[in-house]
Amino acid sequence: MRYLVGLGTLFILCGFAVSQSQPQLNLMPIPASVQQGTGSLPIAPSFSVKLDGAHDPVLEAGVHRFEHQLSRQTGIPFQPKAGSASTLTVRVEKPIPAILKLGEDESYQLTVTDSGAQLTAPNSLGALHGLETFLQLVRITPDGFVAPAVTIRDQPRFPWRGLLIDVSRHFIPLDVLKRNLDGMAFVKMNVFHWHLSDDQGFRAESKVFPKLTSMGSEGHYYTQEEIRDFLTYAHDRGIRVVPEFDTPGHSRSWFVGYPDLASNDGPFTVENEHGPESVTDPTREETYKFIDKFVEEMGRLFPDAYFHIGGDEVNGKFWDSNPKIQAFKQAHGMKTNQDLQAYYNEHLQKILAKHHKTMIGWDEILHPDLPKTIVVQSWRGQDSLAAAAKQGYAGILSFGYYLDLIWPAARHYAVDPMSGGGRTLTSEQQKLILGGEAAQWAEWVSPENIDSHIWPRNAAIAERLWSGQDVTDVNSMYARMHAVGLKLEFLGLTHYSARDRMLQRMAGTADIDALRVLAEVVEPVKDYNRWDDAQGPIDFHYPLTRMIDAVYPESDVAREFSNAVQQFARSGYKDRALAAQIRGQLMLWRDNDARLSPLLQRSSLLQENIAVSQNLAMIGAAGLQALDYLDQGIPEPDLWKTQQLSVIEQAKKPSLGLLLVVVGPVQQLVQGASGQVAQK
Amino acid sequence: MRYLVGLGTLFILCGFAVSQSQPQLNLMPIPASVQQGTGSLPIAPSFSVKLDGAHDPVLEAGVHRFEHQLSRQTGIPFQPKAGSASTLTVRVEKPIPAILKLGEDESYQLTVTDSGAQLTAPNSLGALHGLETFLQLVRITPDGFVAPAVTIRDQPRFPWRGLLIDVSRHFIPLDVLKRNLDGMAFVKMNVFHWHLSDDQGFRAESKVFPKLTSMGSEGHYYTQEEIRDFLTYAHDRGIRVVPEFDTPGHSRSWFVGYPDLASNDGPFTVENEHGPESVTDPTREETYKFIDKFVEEMGRLFPDAYFHIGGDEVNGKFWDSNPKIQAFKQAHGMKTNQDLQAYYNEHLQKILAKHHKTMIGWDEILHPDLPKTIVVQSWRGQDSLAAAAKQGYAGILSFGYYLDLIWPAARHYAVDPMSGGGRTLTSEQQKLILGGEAAQWAEWVSPENIDSHIWPRNAAIAERLWSGQDVTDVNSMYARMHAVGLKLEFLGLTHYSARDRMLQRMAGTADIDALRVLAEVVEPVKDYNRWDDAQGPIDFHYPLTRMIDAVYPESDVAREFSNAVQQFARSGYKDRALAAQIRGQLMLWRDNDARLSPLLQRSSLLQENIAVSQNLAMIGAAGLQALDYLDQGIPEPDLWKTQQLSVIEQAKKPSLGLLLVVVGPVQQLVQGASGQVAQK
Repeated sequence: MRYLVGLGTLFILCGFAVSQSQPQLNLMPIPASVQQGTGSLPIAPSFSVKLDGAHDPVLEAGVHRFEHQLSRQTGIPFQPKAGSASTLTVRVEKPIPAILKLGEDESYQLTVTDSGAQLTAPNSLGALHGLETFLQLVRITPDGFVAPAVTIRDQPRFPWRGLLIDVSRHFIPLDVLKRNLDGMAFVKMNVFHWHLSDDQGFRAESKVFPKLTSMGSEGHYYTQEEIRDFLTYAHDRGIRVVPEFDTPGHSRSWFVGYPDLASNDGPFTVENEHGPESVTDPTREETYKFIDKFVEEMGRLFPDAYFHIGGDEVNGKFWDSNPKIQAFKQAHGMKTNQDLQAYYNEHLQKILAKHHKTMIGWDEILHPDLPKTIVVQSWRGQDSLAAAAKQGYAGILSFGYYLDLIWPAARHYAVDPMSGGGRTLTSEQQKLILGGEAAQWAEWVSPENIDSHIWPRNAAIAERLWSGQDVTDVNSMYARMHAVGLKLEFLGLTHYSARDRMLQRMAGTADIDALRVLAEVVEPVKDYNRWDDAQGPIDFHYPLTRMIDAVYPESDVAREFSNAVQQFARSGYKDRALAAQIRGQLMLWRDNDARLSPLLQRSSLLQENIAVSQNLAMIGAAGLQALDYLDQGIPEPDLWKTQQLSVIEQAKKPSLGLLLVVVGPVQQLVQGASGQVAQK
Repeated sequence: MRYLVGLGTLFILCGFAVSQSQPQLNLMPIPASVQQGTGSLPIAPSFSVKLDGAHDPVLEAGVHRFEHQLSRQTGIPFQPKAGSASTLTVRVEKPIPAILKLGEDESYQLTVTDSGAQLTAPNSLGALHGLETFLQLVRITPDGFVAPAVTIRDQPRFPWRGLLIDVSRHFIPLDVLKRNLDGMAFVKMNVFHWHLSDDQGFRAESKVFPKLTSMGSEGHYYTQEEIRDFLTYAHDRGIRVVPEFDTPGHSRSWFVGYPDLASNDGPFTVENEHGPESVTDPTREETYKFIDKFVEEMGRLFPDAYFHIGGDEVNGKFWDSNPKIQAFKQAHGMKTNQDLQAYYNEHLQKILAKHHKTMIGWDEILHPDLPKTIVVQSWRGQDSLAAAAKQGYAGILSFGYYLDLIWPAARHYAVDPMSGGGRTLTSEQQKLILGGEAAQWAEWVSPENIDSHIWPRNAAIAERLWSGQDVTDVNSMYARMHAVGLKLEFLGLTHYSARDRMLQRMAGTADIDALRVLAEVVEPVKDYNRWDDAQGPIDFHYPLTRMIDAVYPESDVAREFSNAVQQFARSGYKDRALAAQIRGQLMLWRDNDARLSPLLQRSSLLQENIAVSQNLAMIGAAGLQALDYLDQGIPEPDLWKTQQLSVIEQAKKPSLGLLLVVVGPVQQLVQGASGQVAQK
């Protein structure tokens, strides 16, 4: 039965290519200009790269990495023959700068013919991008691996294309972050936003204030040496690293070792959600002395010009309940806590400026008292971003790019920094929209499943920020995202492969075939609905080993099934091949619970899925009956219709955080069956 | 269709447990003594380990690793509460020695009750083994992860339980070797035999003779610093490392930089099988001066008491064709080249002894002129080993444990060092049989697929060398090997997971579901038959990316299908549930080629599988027709029988190195159909 799904996938992903005169290039992001040629360049064991132009150790390392990755992807251990002509020539005018700045020239030009390839770029940054494009071009054909003939001229739409990873709620080790940098480079993202502190942990070693990590990290932090190594790793890939130390809110972890910074009394702890909360006290001189020394140290450690101070979600009640802070506000004529936060940020901004840093923070930092040099990161939306731009503030968009909301890629893809309020900006104001950042908040991810929460969906966001605003074809996006997703696994990411290992953990020694059928049609609940599922206080130490943690955020099987049902409906429910494909899928689902249920009962990690597995069986049966009615043209009994609607309503409800995402198309079949028969 | 296979697996692997009053313990190797108790110890987030007794940094690191691995396996981030009682107490009398010797006490005792676990051992080596046993005990249940109550007293049968990895024919990077050390520790193997040089490459840096690697390795070698780090890694896991530098044969890589060592003129090269071959010239004084300095350097680098000089497969023609060597033989009254090799080995042995090393070599080094202190590694068999023992030589067995022969695990498992000639030994002579070594020669493996060639089959050999000679139940072995194989993936080995990635490479962006169906029923040809498949000279630089490289050496699906057919036959072809299961499997195979064939044609790496995929379809159809005859009791037409036999004969033949391993059971069904009908 499963093979029908497989065949469907084949058709959708590859049939497309066959119907065109030239194969679809699985490039993501789509370059600014692509001209396909004829023929293709064979990727042979003699493949070699030659570096021309400016000497640059970073580019040399990039070429070495490129050869290694091409070798992993194709399985060919390259053995260039001494003296023979090089296959790919790379020429740059300038090396990569020691410290990357916002707005570097990232353009490149790549020409592939059947006899060789040339990559040219004004500087090494563009060449690094071009090498990734080449890796994406390579495909298997009846004649071996080839890069199709093509001429590409490329440059990004926005200069700031970032990914935020929160390492506080769950500590994410450096090897996991590094492979995510590899993924970012593969889709041409250029800013890693490192959310290094939050209530649940302070993750960057400070030698000036050692208690930040010795008391505020539960032992999970990066040493300065590790951080420096990581920064080099990022720089080698043309990626800037912007550190974020969130303040005055989201900063309980600072207070564990330094309780005087807080607005109320401790003691504080990072262990779970117990004990007192607080926010930084902005009224004490000592706070600013602390921050001055801290920024001096961290500013040296992180060479980037931008320094993120967070600034989001400040809970005013801790200021309201402190008489000294109230008195301070009154003395300074401040009416609101927003005024007090602006006062705080103004001081922070001066400290940052003293240490040659540009301040960046979330929406809430926006205040007329702050200079126009700051950058606003908007979680509120394009209108908020545009309003800031109209006031002269530069900004980046993160609204719509929160990967932890578990949206389908298409929904992220549809969010453009320039839409909404962005459309009302002058061309000067538009330049203040620097780009955007995907954000992976880490309340519900572990090192084991964070890849699958970021990838491949992050590739769609990367395309939104690099490619033209008119690049909006969702079907093309999904096909290319899948192709890129497969190649990302060869880079070492585990977004596809980790799932089956997690399913195997749940299943013990049992075969996971039936479990996979279930896993492929469920998704975690969206937005912040998982918080509702949690009963009692959240414990971030709790194992993330449930079905909701293992499954992909977006089900390919469900999307393809839905597409098949739409297509079937458009055929007036006549297309027999589609009917057979849909029937096969529904039979698999109907029969799956019988295979799966003994296993579900044997494992503590699987018992909670008994209901959703039964629902899948019922949905499968309902769909099959609907197909029978459609096939036979028999009017359906009223009782049947009532029953199906009740089954569908039940199956639509989230079950312990899991959504059965094939209910919609089955409902459509049931309604189609009613409609069809009614027409007769 | 596939789910029937899944269900079959479930039944075979887990149904077994259900039918017993106590769950089968998935331990491999089986301990010397196991007493199951009642109840079980929960593996909770508060799980903690306490170290008692002798202080030992190696054991401390082992406990840390244990906690990390238990966490990966269960997904639980352990958070022991300060002050609460420890779950597992480990007590040892003595730390691990700085240099491990052959025959250290490796015993341990592990007691698990529902309230805690105690592990005791005379020294840390045993404790390390006991920790691995504990990891193997842990299983998922309806009540969470537990370790079942048990009392284990354990110790090995043989003191030498090794794995040889050849890193010359294909260079294997250290990270791959390290994860294989993790695997070895998991199944209690204690000797890593590092085959560091052969014709195709010299892999260990020599500072005294730098041209060994600068000219003889194509840049693929381990620095001394890397080697020291690797030795520490092994020692931390209780594993001795025995280096092998093969001489006088298999040593072309030495001659590239030092052609004077050779018996004929160069120039020599390590690139493939081109250019002159040679063997070391044993007649020149300079050869021994070279080896003296070399052994001095390597002897210091590798602290183990044993030093492997190879000595196998010396091609005498290079001595025969050198007039000086002929004159030397005559002058020394040597009749045969064996005498000359013995002369060489005698000198080597003295050099080794001078540097406090014990010589070990392959069968061929055995010669009455050599002292009884040497150890013989037998690739020839138990008789050869026993003959050596009768002469007073210690030995280890590798015959029967060559993983590169692609035998089923059961065949390796059936080879016992003490069988054959071993049975005729006195008890004193028996003590000279030190154990055995699995061997992974690397002509046909790459870093990508070496894990799947070693694992999980190596676990069966590990059990043979650790557990009692009477532990021979093959079904139990397969069930436990599968369970251990799944856990090995959590340790970082890729023996199961690499296959699908390799299939995906072949398939490009297409779904690999149908490809997997084919991959699951084929095996590489056995013994050295792959060499016949290669046309022209072998090129070890050729990509190992074909189906033959991706598939598992042993097909679980085929073994389970064969078991089902046997069982069906035993039921007189009456068992309807089995008939349905077999029918489902056969339908899947019959229909698979139609799904798969478009993909096979699109990929250069898959085209060669077109015939074998068609054969699978024909075999599936033949089996289904046989089932129909069995079901209906209709006498089969002669023409049908002739056709099926011809199809079966064709499908039995290897197809470009691939064996379709489900032909046998289908043939049995066809013959069963004839037989059944004839009886009526």
